[in-house]
Amino acid sequence: MTEFETLAGVAEPGKLYGIGVGPGDVRYMTLRAAGLVRSVDVLAYFAKRGRMGNARKIVAPLVAPARRELKLEYPLTDEVHVSDPAYGEAIARFYRESAETLKNELGEGRSVGLLAEGDPFFYGSFMHMWRRLEGSVAVEVVPGVTGMSGCWTRANTPMTWGDDVLSVVPGTLSEALLVERLTRCDAAVIMKVGRNLAKVRRAVETAGMIDRAIYIERGTMSEERIMPLRACADEIGPYFAMVIIPGNGRRI
Amino acid sequence: MTEFETLAGVAEPGKLYGIGVGPGDVRYMTLRAAGLVRSVDVLAYFAKRGRMGNARKIVAPLVAPARRELKLEYPLTDEVHVSDPAYGEAIARFYRESAETLKNELGEGRSVGLLAEGDPFFYGSFMHMWRRLEGSVAVEVVPGVTGMSGCWTRANTPMTWGDDVLSVVPGTLSEALLVERLTRCDAAVIMKVGRNLAKVRRAVETAGMIDRAIYIERGTMSEERIMPLRACADEIGPYFAMVIIPGNGRRI
Repeated sequence: MTEFETLAGVAEPGKLYGIGVGPGDVRYMTLRAAGLVRSVDVLAYFAKRGRMGNARKIVAPLVAPARRELKLEYPLTDEVHVSDPAYGEAIARFYRESAETLKNELGEGRSVGLLAEGDPFFYGSFMHMWRRLEGSVAVEVVPGVTGMSGCWTRANTPMTWGDDVLSVVPGTLSEALLVERLTRCDAAVIMKVGRNLAKVRRAVETAGMIDRAIYIERGTMSEERIMPLRACADEIGPYFAMVIIPGNGRRI
Repeated sequence: MTEFETLAGVAEPGKLYGIGVGPGDVRYMTLRAAGLVRSVDVLAYFAKRGRMGNARKIVAPLVAPARRELKLEYPLTDEVHVSDPAYGEAIARFYRESAETLKNELGEGRSVGLLAEGDPFFYGSFMHMWRRLEGSVAVEVVPGVTGMSGCWTRANTPMTWGDDVLSVVPGTLSEALLVERLTRCDAAVIMKVGRNLAKVRRAVETAGMIDRAIYIERGTMSEERIMPLRACADEIGPYFAMVIIPGNGRRI
C-alpha cells in the first residue's frame, strides 16, 4: 500500500506544469495535482486585479506559508467586451508578457506550476501559455475534473446514458445558434452562462428542453446554488454559472 | 498545511459511494476517491467474467491485502450484441441482482465503494445502480477525471478554445448520424470506437475532419497508443479506443 504523497510524486527543476485543480472542492483535486502544488518552486496563477483568483482559492489548503507565488494579473475587467479590439490587443500583450515571465522563472532552473480551473486543455487560459511555450520548455499537463462534472455531481443527476450525444455549448453564442446546437443533441452543458443567462433561458425554452434544464452557480464551491432553470428568474448570473440538461438515453 | 489523507476524508457506515477513479493513471484519481478506496468496508466493481476489470486495476496501488471485495461479474461477453433482446434481459436481471447485493451489504451497516472508470455520471455503469438505489440508501458520488480528458492530455493537444462547441458522440451511431453530428460542432470526441473503428474513420473523412483527428487507445494506461486517425489502418480497436478532434477556436 503506497502513501498518497509517494503516488503523487514531485516536480522537476526547470519544468512547467499545467495543473488542473478541478471544479472547486479541494478534495476533487487529483493526487498528481496535489503533489505538484506542494512541490513546485513557483506557484503561478491568473487572477483579476485585486482578486485572489479562483484557482488559487481552491488550492489554499495545500499551500504552506511563505511559498514563492507568481500572480499573473489580467489587465482588464469584465467592462470591456471580448469583441472590442482593445480587449484583444491588451489581452494578447498580457499573455505574451506572462509567457515571458514564466520562461524566465524556468530558465533560472525553477519548476513552475500554473494553476488551471477544471481541466487545463478544456477552455483553459493555461492553453494560451502552452501554445507559446510548448516546444521550447519542458511541460507536463495534469488533467482535472471539469467544472461540468462537478456541477452534474452536485445536481445529483446522471448526465449521459447509452448512446446519448452530449454537446458542450458556450452561452456566448447567438440565441439562434444556441437553439440550433441544442436541438442536435440529447444532453447538453451550457458554459459561460453569466451575463448570457436570459438569452440562454430563452434558447433552452425554444429548444423544448426547459423541463430537464438545471441551473448551477459555483458548483462544488461554497455558495453553491442549484435549481431548475425554470425557477431561476435572474437576468445575469455569476461567471461560474452553468446550465446542464441531462440525457434521456437507454436505461437498462 | 493539511495532509492529503486528512483532506480526503473517510467513508461512513452504511453509505454507498460511487467513486470515479479517473482515466487510468492512478495519479489522476482525486484525493476524495483515493481516501474512499482506502476506507470503505467493501470495495465493489463491475468486471467481465474471468477479468480483473479496468476500474479495479486502476486502484490496485491503493488496495491493501485482505480487503473485503465484491466483484460484480457481467453475465455476457461482447459476443451478444446490445440490440439483441437476450442481452437486454440478461443485463437488466444482472443489474437488479447487483443492486440487491449492494443493498444487503449496506443494510449490514457496511460502507460500500463502487468503482467507476472516469466519471460515475458520464456513461457509467454506476448509473444503473444509482437509479435503483438512490432515495432508499445514502449515496455520495465522487466525480472523476473523464477518459476523454486523459486522452487529450496524453495526445498533448488543447481541446476547446474560445467559443468552440464540443460534441461527445458514441461511435455506435449510424455512419450518417455520425457525419451529421460531427458537422455541427467545432471539436469532437468519439467514444466507444472499438468495433466501430472503420465506420468512425469513414464518417470523420466525410465530415472533412480527418486532418485533425487523433486515434487513442488506452489513454493514460500502460500500452497506450496514440496516432493520427489517418495513420491507423485497423478495422477494429479495443474497447478503450477513442477519437478526438481538437477545436480550432479563438487563439489570443
